[in-house]
Formats: sequence, C-alpha cells, structure tokens
Amino acid sequence: MSTTTASKVHNFSAGPGILPLEVLQQASEACINFDGLNLSLLEISHRSKNYERVMLEARNTVKELFEVGDDYEVLYLGGGASLQFAMIPYNLMKEGGSAAYVNTGVWATKAIKEAKIIGNTKVIASSEDKKFTYVPKEYVIPSDADYLHITSNNTIYGTQMKHFPKCDIPLVCDMSSDIFSRKVNAKDFTLIYAGAQKNMGPAGSTMVMVKKDALGKTGRKMLSMLDYQVHIKGDSMYNTPPVFPIYVTLLTMQWLKKNGGIAWIEKLNQQKADAIYNEIDRNSLFYGTVDKADRSNMNVCFLLKKPELENEFDKFCKEANMSGLRGHRDVGGFRASLYNALPLESVHVLVEVMKEFEKKFA
Amino acid sequence: MSTTTASKVHNFSAGPGILPLEVLQQASEACINFDGLNLSLLEISHRSKNYERVMLEARNTVKELFEVGDDYEVLYLGGGASLQFAMIPYNLMKEGGSAAYVNTGVWATKAIKEAKIIGNTKVIASSEDKKFTYVPKEYVIPSDADYLHITSNNTIYGTQMKHFPKCDIPLVCDMSSDIFSRKVNAKDFTLIYAGAQKNMGPAGSTMVMVKKDALGKTGRKMLSMLDYQVHIKGDSMYNTPPVFPIYVTLLTMQWLKKNGGIAWIEKLNQQKADAIYNEIDRNSLFYGTVDKADRSNMNVCFLLKKPELENEFDKFCKEANMSGLRGHRDVGGFRASLYNALPLESVHVLVEVMKEFEKKFA
Repeated sequence: MSTTTASKVHNFSAGPGILPLEVLQQASEACINFDGLNLSLLEISHRSKNYERVMLEARNTVKELFEVGDDYEVLYLGGGASLQFAMIPYNLMKEGGSAAYVNTGVWATKAIKEAKIIGNTKVIASSEDKKFTYVPKEYVIPSDADYLHITSNNTIYGTQMKHFPKCDIPLVCDMSSDIFSRKVNAKDFTLIYAGAQKNMGPAGSTMVMVKKDALGKTGRKMLSMLDYQVHIKGDSMYNTPPVFPIYVTLLTMQWLKKNGGIAWIEKLNQQKADAIYNEIDRNSLFYGTVDKADRSNMNVCFLLKKPELENEFDKFCKEANMSGLRGHRDVGGFRASLYNALPLESVHVLVEVMKEFEKKFA
Repeated sequence: MSTTTASKVHNFSAGPGILPLEVLQQASEACINFDGLNLSLLEISHRSKNYERVMLEARNTVKELFEVGDDYEVLYLGGGASLQFAMIPYNLMKEGGSAAYVNTGVWATKAIKEAKIIGNTKVIASSEDKKFTYVPKEYVIPSDADYLHITSNNTIYGTQMKHFPKCDIPLVCDMSSDIFSRKVNAKDFTLIYAGAQKNMGPAGSTMVMVKKDALGKTGRKMLSMLDYQVHIKGDSMYNTPPVFPIYVTLLTMQWLKKNGGIAWIEKLNQQKADAIYNEIDRNSLFYGTVDKADRSNMNVCFLLKKPELENEFDKFCKEANMSGLRGHRDVGGFRASLYNALPLESVHVLVEVMKEFEKKFA
C-alpha cells in the first residue's frame, strides 16, 4: 500500500464529490485496522459495540448540526435519495390524501413521478418554463395537502433556494446537494433528506431526519423496508446498514464540527461562491446560466460566450490539475461544484485559469 | 496512516464477515488514490470511465462465476437483502397471482412477511416445528404459483440446502450467506440474490441476478426504485450506486477467480467444514445443533454439553486471537462462520483450542 505523492487534484465533481483529505486517510486506515481492533471495518459485525457507537454518533451528530431535539429521529438508509422519492409519499401521504410539490429540476421531477404513483400529487409551482434557471417564489400552498416537498439546491442547473416557504403543512426537503453548507432553521422542516455523496460523505447511504409525530398516519399497510417507523424502532439497524459509507459520513461531519461547524463552513462557502461568481461576471468570455438571485453556492454553472472555445478551456483546466468541471449534459458548458470539502485555494486556481484564458482568447 | 503490525485476528464473524487481506489492502489504497487518478474512489463520479469499468466488470464477473449467459442481468442495489424481500414479490408476483415459500429460518420468515403484504403467499414447507434445525425435503410445489422462494443457507441455525428443489415454476433463491461458496447450477434459477456482506464483499450492496424474460409481467404500476427493469435499463446505475461497496465486492470476486474460482473454494470450504465438524463429533464436550445431513459448510453451530463452561471457552477463544464465535441469540452457544476468505489455518487454530479445552475440562 502506498499513498500518493503527486499533488492533489482540484476536485470540482458534482457528486460523488470531494471529501476532506484527512477523512480519506482515516477511511483508508479503517479498511485495515478499525478502532484498534486489528480487524477491518469492512469485515466486522454491525452489531459490534465499536460499530454501534459509530451509528449512534452518526445519528446524533446530524441532530447536533441541525440543532434539533429528540422529537426528531435520524436514519441512514440504502438505496439513495431516489428511494426516498418513493418512501416520502409512502410514509407521509395519507390513503386518499394529497401532496404538494415545487418542481425546480430533474430531481424534483423524479420525486413528483414517484409521488404520483402513490397518490394525488399537485405540482404547485415549477420553473420548467425557463429550463429551471430560477426558483419559483410566489405560489399558494394548499392547506389540505399532507406535505409540501421542495428541493433546496438543484445540482444540475445551479440554483438554490435562498429562503424556504412559510408553511402550515409539513415541509419536506431534499437537501442532497447543500446539506450542512449553510445555516437553516431545521425545526421548520418535518423531514430533511440527503444522499450523502455530495456534502456529507461517500455514496451508499442516505440520511433521513424526520419528526416522529408525523409518522404512522397514512392508513397504509406498509412494506417493512419502506417504513420509517420500522427503521426507527431498529435504531437505523433494522437490517445490515451500509457500514462503511456511514462511518465515512460520520468522519466528514466530525471534520466539519472540529473546524467550526456550520457557521465556519457557511462563511467559507460564501467566499468560494463570491470568488467564482465575481470572476464569471467580470470575465468577458463567460456568463452565468441562472437568475442571479437564485445562484447556488454549491454548483456554479457557467457557459462560454464562444462555445467553440470549450475544448480549449478544458485543456486549460486539465493543465491546472482541475477535474470534474464539465457541465451536466442538460445544461452544457461548465459547472464548478464547491462542496464543503473543496478548499478556497481550488477556487482561486480556477479563477486564475479563467483570467489566463481571457488573456489568451478575448 | 499506519498498517497494523499485530498478528491478524481469526475472524469467524457471521456477517459482515471476513474478507481477503489483499482485498482490504486494495480497498485501503483506493480510499486515497483510485486507479492512479490521484483521487479517492470515495469522491469521484460514478459516471467516470474508471468507475463505469468497475460496475461493468462487477456485473460480468457474477455471470462468469455462475456460468450464465446474456439472458440474465446482474444488478447491485442498496437497501440490503431485506429490500429484496419486498422487491421479489413486487416484480414477480402477478396482480391476483401467488407465490410459494419454503421457511427455513428467520430470514425466510421475513421474506414471507413482505410477500404477504404484496399478495397471496403460501408457505409450502417449514422447519419451524424443530426450531429450524433441519431443511424440509418433501413438499409439493404448486404449479400455478408465480415462483418458489428458498433460502440456500441459514446463517443463524447453520443449515444448508445440499440439493435444490426441482421446479417447473421460476425458482428464486436467497444465497446471502453461501453465494460463490460451492458449485450450483445457476441456470436452474430465475433469480438469485445476496446481501454482499457475507461471502461477496462488504455491507452496503446487494447483488441480484435475474432472468430478463421473467420481468414485466405483474400488471403492477411500479415505483421506479423497486422495479428491476428500471435498474437494468440504467445498467445498475439508474441512480448513484453504493460505489465503494461494489468496488470491494469486485475485488473479492477477482481474488476468488485468481485463486481457482468456485472449484477451488468449494474444496477448501469442504476441508474447513470437515475439520470443524469432525472435531465437534469427536470432542466429548461439544455437540452440533442441526441434522447432520443439513449441516452448513458456512456457519457451524455448536453447543457445550456443559453450558456453564461457555465463559471459559470464550476465554480460550480470545486467548487464541479468535473473534466472532458467539452463537446468535436464538440458538446460543457458538457459531464458526467459515466464509470463503477464512483461511484453513484459522479453522485449525479453533480445532486445536477445542482439543486443549477438552483436555482441561473433560
């Protein structure tokens, strides 16, 4: 086993995304010797005391970072956020009830599709008319719906909800791509979920934080693995959980806490976003793709005014040891994902490259 | 980062279970630098060429080891085998149809529970009458059922099907705890599934191998994430898969192939099982818990004739650097799990300890 000696790549991947170097080193070590047991984390029982501590701490740290109390439960489930698209209506939409959705992109559209299979699903606002380049702000929330579902950040388009709707019905939010990137008032939400692989940890586990008193009301006969109450009763170990992904998620949250928590990372993320958006707006060769008010601090989408220069800019990026900058096929161009673990230094490198590029091609 | 210098523990854990040391080392390295990319496998896109190769090979290697052709598809899904307890009837039991189950233990019982929520589920044989200490052999398979579900190995009780039922209806098998441990005629099965964390790899992904022509016949409107056809269409990447667990599973299968494949491991597993069962039968202090004809080559359950000596035997085991030997709470006593990666040497150590124990306490 050898560690790399070459300099680290600037990793702008949209997800699975960059993780802190010290977390990767701890994860690597745990593959050989976890917790001093002389056993790998990959080959020990999830019912061992050492792992039960990991699970407990991984659940508690979410509540700590979100500043919520014991009226909430935290689960780590397999299947990705996409499985939650089904589990949320299955657990929260009553038989004969309804749900309201705001459509801000591909992932919201997928969530809506699954909810429609379960029951009466109303799309109360959508930005599809302008290819999801903004976040809808004025809409009426039906007071008789069982919940309202929103997506806080749209990875593909680079938009982000800067304010969350005021809501008398349970508020459910897919925070997959901006969880723990900024302060939110978590108590305003009945359910927050996030595929870990963008801002929380590696692929393979999805965090669900849910208010206990919202559950058990649908009147639906439920499959065990799709029932949040079954998982809660099993302390998120009703069956064998994704052991290693959850451990790395815990390490990533511990790294966040140790460095100053949400307050620290929000400030840093704002600096990173400001640096790149300022350059996009200043640079004569680039432009942003979404409404300025709705620009995401996590996923910065931008295009070249002369698209024929795209391959040239690619080359510039590669030479500067940057990766993951190509935009999603639905948007094209470029996308810089600025997840928590991305250092400010990487953004500075990108800004420098954009300046150099302008010098050569403007 | 440091590797352990202490001698390796003899790991008899029932699952998640032992993995080959070289696989753990490769996994550890991939946490830092995967495929020479200078990026961790934990922070790269599952859509990267490097990872798409992993997924393709992980899918193809299952077909190779099972010697099946392109009429089968292989998927790696999150949620564990427990999610398959629901997905199997959801995908294979027709609306208004039925399914037949053989109940050989706790996991089969859980599978039956989920199937009953989906539709008409008949338990055609059960060994519950004798606490699952044998495998039922004589039963009539209803020719009008949509499929027959069996469990090839019962981790908790230590029983194993030595012969599979001849069957005119689709045969579905949970092979979680003995997959790739012995030669099976995979073409006799319509669907084989296995939580990876016993014989295939680490926790976090579940392998499903299914005959394509059995799908799409239920008449059921299906949730995307529960629909095998959706996952097949997405090449097992309809959504972000459990990236790292699948990679380690591939490494484990490659280790198996490199060392001689199923033929090699079957012989080795037989040697391991013979060594320990012979000692159980010879030793005046121990006895086996299940019918001899149905003894599992993967999970060897045994009790002390004087239960008051259990803590003493525990001490002997710990002093010999062995772990994971305590039986499941439903059976008590001891259980030695002899998964593929357990070396014969570890079994010899256990046998020696049993002999020493007899000398002292007989």
